Amino acid sequence: MTYCVGISVRDGLVMIADTRTNAGIDNIATFRKLHVFEEPGERIMAMCTSGNLSVSQAVLNYVQEGMENTETGVVDTLMTMPSMFKAAQLIGRAIRTVYETDGRSLEEHNSRFDVAILFGGQIRGGKMRLFMIYSAGNFIEVTADTPYLQIGEHKYGKPILDRAVNFNTDIPDALKIGLISMDSTMRSNLGVGMPIDIMVAHRDALKADINYRIEPGEPYYHDLRERWSAALRAAHIAIPRPPYATGKNGVLDAG
Amino acid sequence: MTYCVGISVRDGLVMIADTRTNAGIDNIATFRKLHVFEEPGERIMAMCTSGNLSVSQAVLNYVQEGMENTETGVVDTLMTMPSMFKAAQLIGRAIRTVYETDGRSLEEHNSRFDVAILFGGQIRGGKMRLFMIYSAGNFIEVTADTPYLQIGEHKYGKPILDRAVNFNTDIPDALKIGLISMDSTMRSNLGVGMPIDIMVAHRDALKADINYRIEPGEPYYHDLRERWSAALRAAHIAIPRPPYATGKNGVLDAG
Repeated sequence: MTYCVGISVRDGLVMIADTRTNAGIDNIATFRKLHVFEEPGERIMAMCTSGNLSVSQAVLNYVQEGMENTETGVVDTLMTMPSMFKAAQLIGRAIRTVYETDGRSLEEHNSRFDVAILFGGQIRGGKMRLFMIYSAGNFIEVTADTPYLQIGEHKYGKPILDRAVNFNTDIPDALKIGLISMDSTMRSNLGVGMPIDIMVAHRDALKADINYRIEPGEPYYHDLRERWSAALRAAHIAIPRPPYATGKNGVLDAG
Repeated sequence: MTYCVGISVRDGLVMIADTRTNAGIDNIATFRKLHVFEEPGERIMAMCTSGNLSVSQAVLNYVQEGMENTETGVVDTLMTMPSMFKAAQLIGRAIRTVYETDGRSLEEHNSRFDVAILFGGQIRGGKMRLFMIYSAGNFIEVTADTPYLQIGEHKYGKPILDRAVNFNTDIPDALKIGLISMDSTMRSNLGVGMPIDIMVAHRDALKADINYRIEPGEPYYHDLRERWSAALRAAHIAIPRPPYATGKNGVLDAG
């Protein structure tokens, strides 16, 4: 499994990815799923990938090595795209190219062509944007109403995002809440695991303000996990006990 | 969708079920999914059902109306079974009977034969038990190591259970945590909804101590939801902000 979350707030962008992969349940490995493409002052872009690893790695190769634009003959890469929208389209095109090559063979071998990508960042002169790109190469964009997107094992980590993140959340809090969301996911699904890669870019900075790998045992994250567990226990203890009781004759009432 | 959770602790049993059903996303209705079978002093049993509603209702009919025991000729119902194990087997047999009748037709109409049932309770002279019964009619039992079972949309509500419930949790807390788990699920999946049915039976009471429906707007549950939301916000605010920063030359470090 995989869990990645991207949070796009007023001040900028946070992207977080785990690194665990599994081919079946008995073949577990560590692969980077967060990839940062940066030319400081010009562009900062990051991709988080989930799904079939051979597909996502092939997509990554295409957008890095470049794909020839059939109209102009120019070789397009993520670093040459003039806008985030065009860059997302390039990733979509790479996904479709991999599907043309590998899609049928995968199906013949009972494997699914399955990939989902979070792609966020900013190119000079344009806005900061965050997209989710699907297996068909189509994509959606985050909005201020729901300022986050998730791929992979998204359910365990969604309640805290639903409750705590909005477009006005500041970046340190967005990162913290994203890390709590990752912790909830890792706690409930062993297929999602450390280390965790994080990327933070402030709006208009045009560089990665944080590009960091959290290793197992890292003191801050360890402390965050402990504090969150303790706070959850304290939170439910502070809620009064239910008043419900069954009244006489089986009639239901709330005491 | 459906969400039901059963929690079996030292002092007794808590079972909670939502009531929302959907046939497609535009046909939403309310159906009871928690069914209590009680003969005070003799037996207390409760079933929570998920999956295809026609299947779970047919199963319910079979175990209430009775099924002839082919060996003895006696008509078995949930109320005549001598033990919880035998009662769980009867439910499994009812599921297999429905499968024989409806299974192929459902598949021919692109519908899945899909049912999962939580079944808990106690019969005089026996232990309190909690089972999860699958579409194949087979079942598992909760243990002290993991004192809860879930069916339906289980992921959103699992993190709080994983963190807060153990076999020594007392019944009011188990009920409260179960209600928080339900709230997290309803918050993230609109297919799970109010009202909520709850059943609580203390060990050896051989009756339902609580058998109650929580309606929308009910004061305690409304307060629980508000307090839990506020506590989650307070909990993440109390955690220190991440110290991560990208060092010079793109070298990664934790500040």
